[in-house]
Formats: sequence, C-alpha cells, structure tokens
Amino acid sequence: MFLKILKVVNTYFRRYIVGMLILLPVLGWSQDEDVKMIRNIYDEALKNGKAYGWLDHLCKHYPSRIGGSDIYVRAANHMKDVVNEIPSVSGILQDCETEYWYRGSKEEAYIVAPSGKNVPIQVLALGGSIATPEKGITAQVIEVQTLEEVEKLGRSNIEGKIVFFNRPMDATKIRTFHAYGGAVDQRVHGPSKAAEYGAVACIVRSMTTLTDEYPHTGVTVYKNKDTQIPALAVSTLDANRISDYLKTGSVTAYVKTDCQSLGMRYAPSVIGEIKGSEFPDEIILVGGHLDSWDVCEGAHDDGAGCVQSVEVLRILTSIGYRPKRTLRCVLFSNEENGSAGGRTYADVSNANNEFHMAAIESDAGGFTPRGFRFEADTSVFKKYYKKVNEWLPLLESYDLQFYTGGSGADVSHLRSQKGLLIGLAPDSQRYFDIHHSAKDGIENVNQRELELGAAAMASLVYLLDNYGIK
Amino acid sequence: MFLKILKVVNTYFRRYIVGMLILLPVLGWSQDEDVKMIRNIYDEALKNGKAYGWLDHLCKHYPSRIGGSDIYVRAANHMKDVVNEIPSVSGILQDCETEYWYRGSKEEAYIVAPSGKNVPIQVLALGGSIATPEKGITAQVIEVQTLEEVEKLGRSNIEGKIVFFNRPMDATKIRTFHAYGGAVDQRVHGPSKAAEYGAVACIVRSMTTLTDEYPHTGVTVYKNKDTQIPALAVSTLDANRISDYLKTGSVTAYVKTDCQSLGMRYAPSVIGEIKGSEFPDEIILVGGHLDSWDVCEGAHDDGAGCVQSVEVLRILTSIGYRPKRTLRCVLFSNEENGSAGGRTYADVSNANNEFHMAAIESDAGGFTPRGFRFEADTSVFKKYYKKVNEWLPLLESYDLQFYTGGSGADVSHLRSQKGLLIGLAPDSQRYFDIHHSAKDGIENVNQRELELGAAAMASLVYLLDNYGIK
Repeated sequence: MFLKILKVVNTYFRRYIVGMLILLPVLGWSQDEDVKMIRNIYDEALKNGKAYGWLDHLCKHYPSRIGGSDIYVRAANHMKDVVNEIPSVSGILQDCETEYWYRGSKEEAYIVAPSGKNVPIQVLALGGSIATPEKGITAQVIEVQTLEEVEKLGRSNIEGKIVFFNRPMDATKIRTFHAYGGAVDQRVHGPSKAAEYGAVACIVRSMTTLTDEYPHTGVTVYKNKDTQIPALAVSTLDANRISDYLKTGSVTAYVKTDCQSLGMRYAPSVIGEIKGSEFPDEIILVGGHLDSWDVCEGAHDDGAGCVQSVEVLRILTSIGYRPKRTLRCVLFSNEENGSAGGRTYADVSNANNEFHMAAIESDAGGFTPRGFRFEADTSVFKKYYKKVNEWLPLLESYDLQFYTGGSGADVSHLRSQKGLLIGLAPDSQRYFDIHHSAKDGIENVNQRELELGAAAMASLVYLLDNYGIK
Repeated sequence: MFLKILKVVNTYFRRYIVGMLILLPVLGWSQDEDVKMIRNIYDEALKNGKAYGWLDHLCKHYPSRIGGSDIYVRAANHMKDVVNEIPSVSGILQDCETEYWYRGSKEEAYIVAPSGKNVPIQVLALGGSIATPEKGITAQVIEVQTLEEVEKLGRSNIEGKIVFFNRPMDATKIRTFHAYGGAVDQRVHGPSKAAEYGAVACIVRSMTTLTDEYPHTGVTVYKNKDTQIPALAVSTLDANRISDYLKTGSVTAYVKTDCQSLGMRYAPSVIGEIKGSEFPDEIILVGGHLDSWDVCEGAHDDGAGCVQSVEVLRILTSIGYRPKRTLRCVLFSNEENGSAGGRTYADVSNANNEFHMAAIESDAGGFTPRGFRFEADTSVFKKYYKKVNEWLPLLESYDLQFYTGGSGADVSHLRSQKGLLIGLAPDSQRYFDIHHSAKDGIENVNQRELELGAAAMASLVYLLDNYGIK
C-alpha cells in the first residue's frame, strides 16, 4: 500500500522518502528501490537509448580520428556539444597534446615467391612506424615465432633481413583478450627487437583469430632511436601464404610506407560533469577513448565506450536521478598510441587533489555485457570487495557477473588516488575479428548489445553513487 | 610426477588409468581428469572445429529446407553422410512424414494511404497460411494490439476487414526470448482469432525488436477450417508506416499470396549414434532441427544446432573418449511447422522402451553460449539438480551458467521418459534480428561463437556420460 502511494509522488520527492527508507533496511524497502531504479535505467536505455544514434553519427562524420589529426579535434568538439545537450551536464574540452603519427599516402608490399612470381600482400604500417626509403625495402624474409627466437638466431641470421613475426593468437583461450595478450608482444616490441639484431624491416602477423585478408594495425614501440625500422602488419591469410612459401624455399619481400610522425598536436579529451549534491568531492568516472585508428570508423574501439559513457549521464538525468557524488564522463584522447589523454587527465586531477572514488572504462567493444572486471591487484579492491559484492544479486538478474582483471588503459592512470578501477566486460568473441582493422565500423555494432552495456554501467554508477564504497 | 607419466601414455590407455583414479576421489584426481577432459574438448573445438565448415556447406547447398520440400530430403541425406564420416558413429535416416506448405511464386501487398497513394509493403505469408483469391484481397485495415482487442471490437468492427496486429516485442526484456514469448500469440493465433470475427485477411507485425524492411515469417495456426484467412507478416518499418497512416485516416490494403499446403511428404530426421560401452540403454541426446523456413539459409535457426550436435560426437571421438552411455545426435525434421520430427522420434523411442537420460537441444542460435537451461517444472529436475549443480564449477571457468527454463521444442516430446531436458542457452541479443527472415544466413554466424556452443554441449555430455545422474 505504501509503495502504491510512493508511485504517485514525483521522482524528486521520492528520493528523499527513499533516503529515509534506507534507515529501515529491516523492511527491505531500500532493496526494492534499487530494483526499481535499475529497472528504470534499463527501460530508459532500451526504449529511448541514444547511444547507437550517437555512435552512427560519430562513425560516419568523424572516422579515422587518430590523435593529433584535424578530424580528431572536430570529433572532440562534436562530442562536447552532444554532452552539453544533456540537461544538467556541463561539457568541456581538456587541453592535451599528442604526437601526430600520419600513415602517409602510399603503403604497399609484395613477396617474391620461390618460383620468382610477385605476390601482392595486404599490409598496414604499424602506428609509430618510420617510413621506408622512397624506393621501399627489398630483402630476404626470415620467419620467427617469438622475440626470444630473434635473440637466439642472432645477428648473423637476422642482419639485412625482413623479420616476419608469425605466432598466431591462441584460439583455444576462451576470452580473446587472453589470446591477444599472449601474442601482441610481437607487434609492440618485435620490430625494435629485430632491429637490435640488424633487421632492415619487420612484418607482423595481424592480431586476430580469423583467417582473412584484412591487416590489423596497432602501436609498435621502439626501444630507442637506434632500433627504428619500418614495421607493418600483414593479414593472417597472407601470413599463412608467406609461411607456406618459406617451406619451399627462399622468399624475398618488398615493403613500402611513407608514414611519419608530424610532431606534437592539440588533441583534447572531452569531459562531461554532473556535480554531486552531497559528496561533490567524490568523483565517479565513466569513460572510453575518443581517438581511433586511422583505417576505420572506430566503432567498437572505442566509439562504443564513448557513447556509452555519455549515455550513462543521459540515462540517469532522464529518469530524474540526482547524484550525491560528482559523475563524470570522460572521452580520453590518444589511447591508441601514447595515452596522452589518460595521463594528462590524471595529472590535472592529481594536481587538483581530486579523489576518483571509482572509475569505469568501456574499451572492450560494444558487445553484450557479461559483467565488470575489478582491478584486483590493489589493496583498494580488497578493502571494498565485500561491499561491492553485496550489489551483485541486483545485477545478476541482468545477466551480469563480477570478475577480477584489468580495468582500462585510461583509468589505470588514476591508480594513485586509490579508488576502485573497473572495466566493463563485454562478450569478447567477435572483438578481434574487427579490432584495429577496416572492419571496425558501425555495421558491426548491434544496437541492443551497445545499449545493454550503457545500462549496465549506469546501474553500477547508481549503486556506487547511492551507497559509496566506505 | 604421476600426472607427468600419464601424459606420455596414449589417450586410449589413459582412460582406463583414469577409470581407476575415479575410485580415489580423496586424492582429487577425478576432478583433475574432468578439468583436463573439458580442456581437451574446447581445444579440439577451437583448433580443429568442423561445425562452421559444415554449416557453410549446409547453408549454401541446402538453403530454404522447409519440411516436405525436395531440398529438405537432400539436406537430410547430406547430413547423414556427414555423420557417417565420423569414425565410430553410425548415421541413419528416421522415416517421418509432414505436411508440405509451399509459399508459391507470388506474394505482394500494398496499402492505399489516406492520400490515395499506393505504398508497396514488404510481406511474407505466414507458414500454414491459405492463399488469397487470384486477384488478391483488398479491404480496409483495422489495427489492433491484442487478441482480446479483436474480441472486444467484435464482429461489427472486424467483419470484412484486414486485421493488422501491431503490438511490438517488448525491447526492455533483457532476454529476447521473453519479448518473443510476449508477442508471438499475435502471429500464431491472431489470424484465426480475426477470422472468428469475420476478418478477410490478416497482417502481423514482424517478431523482431529491430526497425527495418525485412519481414519475418513463422507459423500460424488455424483453430479450425472455419477460421482460415490469408495471413502475412509485414516488416516493422512498414508496420510503423501503416500505423502512422491510420492516425491520419482510413487505410486500405491489398494482399496477395498463392501459398498452399501440398499434402503429406517424406521428411526424415537424421540420427547419429555411438553405442555406450557400459550402459548402452541410457541415452544422451544432443540435437537441433534440420528444417528451416523457406526464405533463408536457416543458419542460426537451426543449422547451427544441427552442426553443433554432430560436432559433439566428432569432438568426443577425436579426443579418444569412449562413452559409457549411448550418445545420439538427432537432427529433427519439421520443427518449424508441425514438429513431426520430434513427435515421431519420441513415438518410436517410447515404442522401443528407450530411456533418454538426458536430451540437450540447441535451437536458440549459434551465438556465444551463456550456459544451459534445465527444464525445471518436472520432478525429474528436482531429483537430479543437486548432482548436476556439482558440475557447475567445471563449466563456470568457460563462462557458462545453469538456468532454469524451457529446453527445446523437439526434445520436450521426450518428457514422459523422465530424463533431464536441457537447452543450450546462447546470448540472445541478436537472434530476433535475423530469426525467420532472409537475414538468417551464414554471414551472420561467428565461427568462434558457434564452436564454443559445440564445446559447451560436448562438455556437458561428457559429464552426464561419465557420472550419470543417479
């Protein structure tokens, strides 16, 4: 009966009644209110969701928004406007500078098979790679599986050659991020390692479990100025072909790229904020990264995380929820090749003595959410685990679980503030089909899956805000 | 050390050592062996999986395999051959007859908007529908949301009209099957209900949460000979348009279909079997249905369930597992419009006094498996729940959960045998995007997701076989 009366009073008033009800947990009304609030969040996300439309616009009007590019800055201004359209949210740009790596206009490669035939191969220069000379590089190919193998082969076998890293991602790992983690050292550190032993260029098998013709780019990191050689990703189909040719004889490759770094450029992050009504100094952050690789729309990586983060603030506003704590959505710049956005944000936050009570990152694709990963290798997690775990039953009815693991590249810069670091954990099966390749477009995003991720984050934000973690 | 020795003996021999180890549960070796066996199953599925290749062939060579069609019979013979290629599995066809409903060669529709303009609409006759007269049917459209609304409006409002059922699936349901369950009465019983009140034809909003131009067909059931009127699905986009037009004035529709039932035809189910070594009379079934709607490749519905079921037997054979109990994969005929395959199989099984200890159906799409649904409204489930639940930790590390709910339309005919009835529960978010529409093709199936479903089923089959349920 009392609940019936509650229904007719307006939401704003209800919050105060509910605040009092929390003092009466024996009656179970607090739990009821949580159940209703989370139901409201999901209803809003699934009936009136804006995330998919926002993502479509971002992908179609601002694709290839690599940090430092002009289109990135335009994307940031556009998303600031989107944020500012939400009542009660104020959106700003946060100044940030990042090295601008530009793919250039010409990249090509072919191999000369043992038969003498030229076979074109699909390549993408790795982010951060230097260019080849204008006439390209032609050299013998040597296949390796690991960085250790390069060391073992030594300078006598490596010098003057193009080193071809070809260890596939392990398809038997159930969560594909584990397979990625087990293979990506080849892309990040392989070229530099090959250069140490005198290689003239490096080609790396794409980081995907699919066998297809799409190369997948991604960052490579040179140990120092002396270990810079051109580095390119090759599609898995071509990687298999090259490996097959090598079984029959000597293979020569020609690679050409005119990619280059163009120096430091303006690349602001976007911040939207709702000031907390009771504990404004306790910040709850939801974020993703706005930059993408230059060869795609950056739909799953990470337009999805950006629009979901903005959607969290829109959902909570739309259902009339006024947060006790300060809520921020942050669309970080330059996650893909430098993390300048995440570092800058943390530096400014630390300088202002801010405290991020919790920071949730969505940067694993806009797929069906399976739950949240809590960064568990900190004393913080151990301290608050029990309290957080009490919320699990509320989320389990939405098919969500709690896991331990990494949170996200951007929010991890906030570790010193000793708040909870959390990552949305979507289903990972399709992520590396499209990751860092031309296939990462809106056509591969499912609207419901995207919306469910936003609703999951909004629900956890609500619980964090309503109860705190202490 | 002992485990190290185990690794060097061959798989066949290992089973017997392992058999002895089960007698020593205090040492924990039995659990270790389960962990290894399930790991082997997943490795085999993800490294050497055949399900995706089989499904591609089935979709491209045997699309539109509706029960009763010639192509269905060819598909059944083909899948019998696939089954027989697995060593130790014997494949047969089980005779079955089903009514053959044929779409005909001509279906079309348009509406006459209040402005007088003809607007073509995308339609598909519902399975089982009768034809219109050759010149089609032209009549005024009346929109309703429920079957009850038809009753309430009564004959005076319905007679002579085309009834338009337009209640959308509820997008706020987290599992889309719940949304389907809440809307599909319009398609199954709506036309017959409209006919009771004198309607001349019926159009039904497609069962999908997407708004797009694809009509989704599916079965409609007439209460009796007197309530047969032509019934067609209309795309959600067109449904919205018709509803919009109706807000501005009177709308007339023209519908035409020459679909018809062509009488009883041969439509065999496919059965593959490995005889059990210790308890051959206890049968464990894995199955899906081989028939599909005639407008698609039937990739997710339910080619996926078929190839996964065959793959279960292939995986267990390939890793050298010899089942104690009899394992059967069954590819049922005619699930979509009559369930003759499921009924016939159960009739024959009951006549032979068989006992299906467990029957697992995969008929919810080849998406990432989230777990298994156990049919819980039986005393059987309550009896064995505790034992089955002990296996959950082994499957949780593969991101699988146990749920209660329906098993599957085909295996539910085996209920009287009082074994466990189980359904594979894949992620449901994308299923109704493609369900019963032209979009249900191989291009919308992800290889890893399909393989994980097969591995999940094979793991549960292994546990059921190894431990029984008593």
